[in-house]
Amino acid sequence: MMTIQHYVRTYIDPSINGASLPFNTTNAQINKGTIITKYGEIEDQVYFLISGIIEIGLLQKDEEKILDFFFPNSFFSSYASFISRTPSDVQITALTMCTVEMIQLKDLLDAYKTSLLANKIGRVETERLYLRRVKREKDLLTKTAEERYLELLESQPYLISQLPVNKIARYLGIHPESLSRIRKQLALSDICQVSGK
Amino acid sequence: MMTIQHYVRTYIDPSINGASLPFNTTNAQINKGTIITKYGEIEDQVYFLISGIIEIGLLQKDEEKILDFFFPNSFFSSYASFISRTPSDVQITALTMCTVEMIQLKDLLDAYKTSLLANKIGRVETERLYLRRVKREKDLLTKTAEERYLELLESQPYLISQLPVNKIARYLGIHPESLSRIRKQLALSDICQVSGK
Repeated sequence: MMTIQHYVRTYIDPSINGASLPFNTTNAQINKGTIITKYGEIEDQVYFLISGIIEIGLLQKDEEKILDFFFPNSFFSSYASFISRTPSDVQITALTMCTVEMIQLKDLLDAYKTSLLANKIGRVETERLYLRRVKREKDLLTKTAEERYLELLESQPYLISQLPVNKIARYLGIHPESLSRIRKQLALSDICQVSGK
Repeated sequence: MMTIQHYVRTYIDPSINGASLPFNTTNAQINKGTIITKYGEIEDQVYFLISGIIEIGLLQKDEEKILDFFFPNSFFSSYASFISRTPSDVQITALTMCTVEMIQLKDLLDAYKTSLLANKIGRVETERLYLRRVKREKDLLTKTAEERYLELLESQPYLISQLPVNKIARYLGIHPESLSRIRKQLALSDICQVSGK
């Protein structure tokens, strides 16, 4: 189980070994099902996920879509709300019991004024979130639900086994029945490959 | 017409007044129609647009979509390729004659090692690109082509007047005929409003 300091030393700046972070952090345990950031709320925190799974939901007219899932050893936040100080149009939910480490906006902004390391962490993590977004946007434009399901199955088999079908369907932007159909077709094509047909 | 130094002083750090930037930059004039970064190329530069309009294209199977347009006083790049050192799946084209100021990858990475200002510029500009992406992704999920056209018309009237219909249609992800139909309906509803019907 990794803390922010351990993560920064491992992935961002090995030279901080032993030195303290340029901002305060606090730890928290969050119960399964807890809404961490609500729709419309202005995000005041950045979280580091030590253990558990996080869901980012987006309300689209009457339906709730799932924008993203986060897994341990990554930062998460309603980040657009956090950096632009506008109401969050996403909602963050703990899908399982989660352990997190938190950084307050004020502490981070203070550190950004004078700390090279704080700006380096902020830059690198924003780059990672950016790459994630670009990938998701391109996937929505260029891939079918089946292709995206197969990719998720490969990259996050643990997620697929932990989550109910309707959550995965909402993440893929399709009806649960369509996902069941895709799953059946894939199972069928597996059988055909195995039997050489 | 703004340079990077002027932009940084105005929007990122007023205290750099007079001091030099933490990385080298070079200027260039780019002819209309020039492909600045090709599909499959690994991006080695970040550009600052001093004047002109930039198009970011995305090849989707046989069709080319337009992901984004950039206007003066903003940084642009095949940024996902630049930060992840993977082949670009976008193509950058000068839609008009453009004047740009360029930063080389190597110079930026060197500056990131030791310069607070370089990391601050990188962080703030990555935050801006992130917000842009989030907005675009949410728009694709939640807004109709008509709503997105009206928004573009409001935020970038200049763009609409400068670009051919087929470019705008490709940006909205619809057929040019659909865009013509939307335009006619909007013109018709304007007439009805004016005549009080």
